[in-house]
Amino acid sequence: MTALDKTLEIQAFLDQVAGIANGEPTRLKKIVRRIVGDLFATIEAFDVTDDEFWQALNFVGQSAPEFGLWAAGFGVEHFLDVRADRADAEAGTAGGTPRTIEGPLYVAGAPLERGRARLDDGSDAGEVLVMHGRVLSTDGQPIPDAIVDVWHANTLGNYSHFDTSQSAYNYRRRIQTDAEGRYWFRSILPSGYAVPPGSGIERALSAIGRHGNRPAHIHFFVSAAGHRHLTTQINIEGDAYLHDDFAYATRDDLIPPVSRVEDIGLIHAADLNAPFAEIAFDFILPVAMNEGDEGRSSRPRALVD
Amino acid sequence: MTALDKTLEIQAFLDQVAGIANGEPTRLKKIVRRIVGDLFATIEAFDVTDDEFWQALNFVGQSAPEFGLWAAGFGVEHFLDVRADRADAEAGTAGGTPRTIEGPLYVAGAPLERGRARLDDGSDAGEVLVMHGRVLSTDGQPIPDAIVDVWHANTLGNYSHFDTSQSAYNYRRRIQTDAEGRYWFRSILPSGYAVPPGSGIERALSAIGRHGNRPAHIHFFVSAAGHRHLTTQINIEGDAYLHDDFAYATRDDLIPPVSRVEDIGLIHAADLNAPFAEIAFDFILPVAMNEGDEGRSSRPRALVD
Repeated sequence: MTALDKTLEIQAFLDQVAGIANGEPTRLKKIVRRIVGDLFATIEAFDVTDDEFWQALNFVGQSAPEFGLWAAGFGVEHFLDVRADRADAEAGTAGGTPRTIEGPLYVAGAPLERGRARLDDGSDAGEVLVMHGRVLSTDGQPIPDAIVDVWHANTLGNYSHFDTSQSAYNYRRRIQTDAEGRYWFRSILPSGYAVPPGSGIERALSAIGRHGNRPAHIHFFVSAAGHRHLTTQINIEGDAYLHDDFAYATRDDLIPPVSRVEDIGLIHAADLNAPFAEIAFDFILPVAMNEGDEGRSSRPRALVD
Repeated sequence: MTALDKTLEIQAFLDQVAGIANGEPTRLKKIVRRIVGDLFATIEAFDVTDDEFWQALNFVGQSAPEFGLWAAGFGVEHFLDVRADRADAEAGTAGGTPRTIEGPLYVAGAPLERGRARLDDGSDAGEVLVMHGRVLSTDGQPIPDAIVDVWHANTLGNYSHFDTSQSAYNYRRRIQTDAEGRYWFRSILPSGYAVPPGSGIERALSAIGRHGNRPAHIHFFVSAAGHRHLTTQINIEGDAYLHDDFAYATRDDLIPPVSRVEDIGLIHAADLNAPFAEIAFDFILPVAMNEGDEGRSSRPRALVD
């Protein structure tokens, strides 16, 4: 089988990452393509695991938290997903909701709630969002007591903890599914964000004719005993950057429709008194092949003291 | 001609850098060797200039000043020197005092003095050093008005500016040579230093069985109109790490003898009243082939406000 980094798919992806797909192939773009391509080839040749990659990045980036953005923006995090997808396909363990990148903005230890949760602290006047659905096994059976660990940005594109002006764990909750495998949360529709103006990553992306914008999205870890851990995101449809994410996280099956609920009965049923946006989305988890499958990677993550 | 990165010399150097030369070739060491080797190959294939390399490192390392240490410790800075040596040999412009790495601890704008200078502020009770010599052209002619820009650590291995407990420009001066091309300075014998304990670079080096120590050394930029800029260092002989520098800067022609001056007449002639250490060293500069040769690389450097 062709090494993954040599496939047409990944060669075309490297052209995107290096800014060659969208403009003159400058000397700098060619050098960037070579360096990122070499890194992909090394990951493939040594079968570098996600855990190994994140531990290495943590060494290099110990004094540079921005390195999480570099790993996303230069496509390495997406490449690890494509590798995992291919490994699943080879092992016959593909299936369920598609995975996509975690990004560097998760914070462990968010409040745990049963069935229903409100994520926002009420201080941001964004459009109210209700998102709900079930966690299911690939055979369609609901999974009770699954954990939906959700985090997203505010309407300025900022994440609590990293944005210290927000309250603790704002837009961050762990929701345990009920007996029918259901989760439900109220929050606000997040906005996309851009890498920090003037940062090294922003300067590097501009130098190769790229931007550092992400479309609006909501992150999830979904886990349940006996099932494979899922790291994923959904995108908010209609965002200008929906198919032009600097972190390459958008996947077709992760763009659920957003409906506007204006029926007064449904509004009241949601404990609201004005129209709101609604997303219905089920997470589908394959059965775990081994215990390691049940957990997320050992990537170092932010902890609240 | 064999690409430089594929020569036996550089392949053996990669074994050192990756820690393979001094122990079991672990998986991690092999991956490090692959990544550093790929970087060398990219620099060679694209004929990346020093200026390009330092500008790229500045992008990546904008929020991580430690990256200067990574470039030194993983041999990239030495590799750039070997490339420059080879380019000189090919162009028939070799000669003069050997170059070696600049390191990340230069500060621009040190006080300029004529002929003689004292570098230390008197607060460090190290052994007094007098170093002197001439700046010469390769034909043996002395060069008046050359600038010897010197910087070194204190007896704790720390550099002023980065070590804010020291006075401004301690152990940093620019000395203009006199009509006979002579420079002379009084200072103290510096100590070697190690990368910061617990830093990312220290953890990365330990993970591949390497240390982060440098032998005692003194840095120089030497420049003169019409002559090629020289970036170099001398080592203090006798240091335990003299031939085991984590930054690979030691070169045979850059280890001048240190003599102890005990003759009272010579002591008084140096305006001293106790025995001292003395190093005599001439810097030899080839003629510049073009204006660009006269200056140092455009590597971003620390500036004092």
